[in-house]
Amino acid sequence: MWAELLPVGRSAATGGYRRHAWNSADAEGRAWFEQQARSRGLAYETDRNGNQWAWHGDPAAGNAVVTGSHLDSVPDGGAYDGPLGVVSAFAALDELRARGAGFTRPLAVVNFADEEGARFGVACVGSRLATGALDRDAAYALRDADGVRLPDAMEKAGHDPALIGADPERLGRIGAFVELHVEQGRYLTERQPVGVAGAIWPHGRWRFDFHGEANHAGTTLLADRRDPMLTYATTVLAARKKARLAGALATFGKVAVEPNGTNAIASLVRGWLDSRAPDEQTLRQVVDAIEQAAVERGGRDGVRVELTRESYTPVVDFDGPLRDRLAARLDAPVLPTGAGHDAGILAAAVPTAMLFVRNPSGVSHSPAEHAERADCHTGVTALADVLEDLACRPS
Amino acid sequence: MWAELLPVGRSAATGGYRRHAWNSADAEGRAWFEQQARSRGLAYETDRNGNQWAWHGDPAAGNAVVTGSHLDSVPDGGAYDGPLGVVSAFAALDELRARGAGFTRPLAVVNFADEEGARFGVACVGSRLATGALDRDAAYALRDADGVRLPDAMEKAGHDPALIGADPERLGRIGAFVELHVEQGRYLTERQPVGVAGAIWPHGRWRFDFHGEANHAGTTLLADRRDPMLTYATTVLAARKKARLAGALATFGKVAVEPNGTNAIASLVRGWLDSRAPDEQTLRQVVDAIEQAAVERGGRDGVRVELTRESYTPVVDFDGPLRDRLAARLDAPVLPTGAGHDAGILAAAVPTAMLFVRNPSGVSHSPAEHAERADCHTGVTALADVLEDLACRPS
Repeated sequence: MWAELLPVGRSAATGGYRRHAWNSADAEGRAWFEQQARSRGLAYETDRNGNQWAWHGDPAAGNAVVTGSHLDSVPDGGAYDGPLGVVSAFAALDELRARGAGFTRPLAVVNFADEEGARFGVACVGSRLATGALDRDAAYALRDADGVRLPDAMEKAGHDPALIGADPERLGRIGAFVELHVEQGRYLTERQPVGVAGAIWPHGRWRFDFHGEANHAGTTLLADRRDPMLTYATTVLAARKKARLAGALATFGKVAVEPNGTNAIASLVRGWLDSRAPDEQTLRQVVDAIEQAAVERGGRDGVRVELTRESYTPVVDFDGPLRDRLAARLDAPVLPTGAGHDAGILAAAVPTAMLFVRNPSGVSHSPAEHAERADCHTGVTALADVLEDLACRPS
Repeated sequence: MWAELLPVGRSAATGGYRRHAWNSADAEGRAWFEQQARSRGLAYETDRNGNQWAWHGDPAAGNAVVTGSHLDSVPDGGAYDGPLGVVSAFAALDELRARGAGFTRPLAVVNFADEEGARFGVACVGSRLATGALDRDAAYALRDADGVRLPDAMEKAGHDPALIGADPERLGRIGAFVELHVEQGRYLTERQPVGVAGAIWPHGRWRFDFHGEANHAGTTLLADRRDPMLTYATTVLAARKKARLAGALATFGKVAVEPNGTNAIASLVRGWLDSRAPDEQTLRQVVDAIEQAAVERGGRDGVRVELTRESYTPVVDFDGPLRDRLAARLDAPVLPTGAGHDAGILAAAVPTAMLFVRNPSGVSHSPAEHAERADCHTGVTALADVLEDLACRPS
C-alpha cells in the first residue's frame, strides 16, 4: 500500500513531494484512495467539499468513528506528513478485521482535501469548509500563484464547486475523529514511539513592513541611509531571542524586498513572522516584544515599521475525555504540538484526538522527514487499538 | 530640451523611470538624441555597439573632445542620472556656439548604450564593448529576465548585433572624454555646486549562500534548527558595522530565500553584498571581516556559509593632468565616487574626466534624486568652460 503511494507526486530533482490541491499528483493520490476503499469493499464517496470517505458500516447510523488525514503536501514536502495517517487508517482497519473485531459503530477512513494550503494559501480548506470555519465566498475568492481560482481548479479536477460550504449534516453523523500523524518535532525521541496530542499551540502569522528609502549602494553615505534591511536583520535576531526566553517559537522564513537589486539600498523589506507559544498570553507577549525591538531599531535606522496580523488561530484543546482514554489505552505520553491539522479544525465540531508517530529526524515539511518502519507498524497497532476501543464495544 | 525628455519612460505609478536597454522607452530617448543632433546640424551616427554620436567638426581629424553620458535608467530611477550629462553636453555646445568659440578640435556628444545594466545585468555594456572590457561572446550570451538575448533585443530595436565588439579605431580618434553626472552622494552639499572626480572606488559584488535545513516553523524546537535566516541577519548587521569602522560602504540590498514560505524554516538564504572602499586593501579587509562574522555565526547556527565573488572592479584613477586642469579651470573640489560610470570604463583607453553636479537629496537610483535648476545651469557653464579650454585653443 505504502509502496504504491510513494512515487506519487515525488520530484526526481529534490526527492520532495509536490502534491498540491487539485493538481495532477493530487488526482493520482485521490485515485489511489478510491482504489484502496473499493478493494476493501468499503463504500466510497466524495463529500461536497472534495474530502474523500471510505465507509465500513452504515454512515446513516450516526455516531461514527472516523480516522484519516490528508494526502497533499507542502512544496517539496516529505513522504509521511499526511499520507502516514491515511495509510495507517486503512492498515488499522485491516488489522481490526484480522482480529475479527465486532463493530458496534460505523467506521470511516477520510482524506481531507487541501490540508497544506500550498497552492491557494489557506490551510485545511476541506475541513474548514465542512465546519464553516472558511465560508463559501472566501473559498471562491482564492487564487493560486498563476491566478487560477479554487473553484475552477476543483472543477477541472472533476469536482463540482457549486456544492462547497458548511456540511453540518455530515459532521453530525461523526461521534469521534482520530488523526494519526508523523510527529513534526522531537518530543518523542527519547520516550515512546507513539504519543497523544494534548493541545495545538495558538499560532499566527504577522507581516512586518519595513519602509526605508531606495538609494544607490555605491554612493550614499552610511549616515544618509534609511536602510530597512538593517531593521529587518535586527528583528530576525530579536524574534529568536524573545521566543527562546519565553519557551515559544518565532520564525522569519519568508522575505520580499523592493527593488531587490544588488546595488540598491532597499526601499521596502517585508518579512513574515510565524510565531507559536504554549498559551495565548505568551504568544502575545512574544510578538509584542519583537515588534518593540523592530520599532526601536527602526527609529535609529529612519525606517518605519508597520505590523499586520495576517492570520491567528487560538489554542485548540482536544477533547479531554477522548484524549485521556487514548493515552490510558496506549500508555502513551501527551504532547503539545505547534502545527495546525484538520483535527484542530474538526475539534470545534466533534470530539477529536490525535496520535503522533515518532520522527527521529525532527524534520518536517522536507524530504528529510522520516519515521522508522517499526514505529509506523507500532502506530498502526496503536490506531487499531484505539479504534477497537471506540468502535467495537458499546461506547 | 529637458522638458521634452522628462516624460520619456516615466512610470505614472511611481514617478520613476524605466528606460532599459533597447526597450521602447529607450528607443524614444534615442530618437530624441538623434533629433537633437540633427536640429543642431551635427553629424549623427550610431557606432558598432549602439552608442550614439553627434559630431561638431570632422571625426576623422582625430584628437576629438567627447562629452556625454547615458539616457537609460535603473528600474524606477530618477530623471538626472545619465540624461543630465547628455542634455548638458548639447547645452554646453549651444553655449560655446553662442560665445562664438573657435574650435581647434572636433567635438562630439555621446549617448552610451545600456549604462545601467538594468535589463541584462551587466553595467556599461556600450562602453565595455567598445574598449573590449566585455567581449562579443559574453555579450551575445546575456539574457534579460524574460529570456530575451541581448543581440535579439538589439536587432529588434533596429541595431545590427553582428557589428558589436571592440572598437579601437573609434577610441583612437578620441583625445579626451568628459562625462558630466549628477552627484550620487552628498559630498558637494556644503561646498560648491560642481566638483571634479578624483577616482572611482574599487567595488565588487559578493554572493553569500547560507545553507541551512528546511523544517517546519511550528514544530521544530529552536535547539534543533539550522536556520540560515539568523546567519544572514547577523551578516547584514556585521557588514554595516565593518564598513562604518573602515570608512567603506557595504550593503545587502538583494535576497533570495528557499523555500520562502511563512511556516517553513529556510533551507537556503542567498544575500548579495555590494561593497566599496577608498582603496583595494581596505575593501579586501572589509569583505574578509564580514565573511569571518558570517562563518562564526554560521558555526553556531549549524549553517554553512559559501562566498562567491560575482564581480570586481579595481580602483579607477582618472587622468591626473586632465583632472587637475579641470579642477583649476573651475576652481572646483576633487571628489571620490563609489559608483561605476562609462567614464570609468573609457578611462582605461583614453584620457577621461568627470564633473559632478550637486544633488541636495543625496538620493540616487530613485525618483527622489534631484538637482536644483540653478546648479544644472552652473554645470552646463562649467562643462562649456572645460570644453572651450580643451577644444577651442591649441592644446
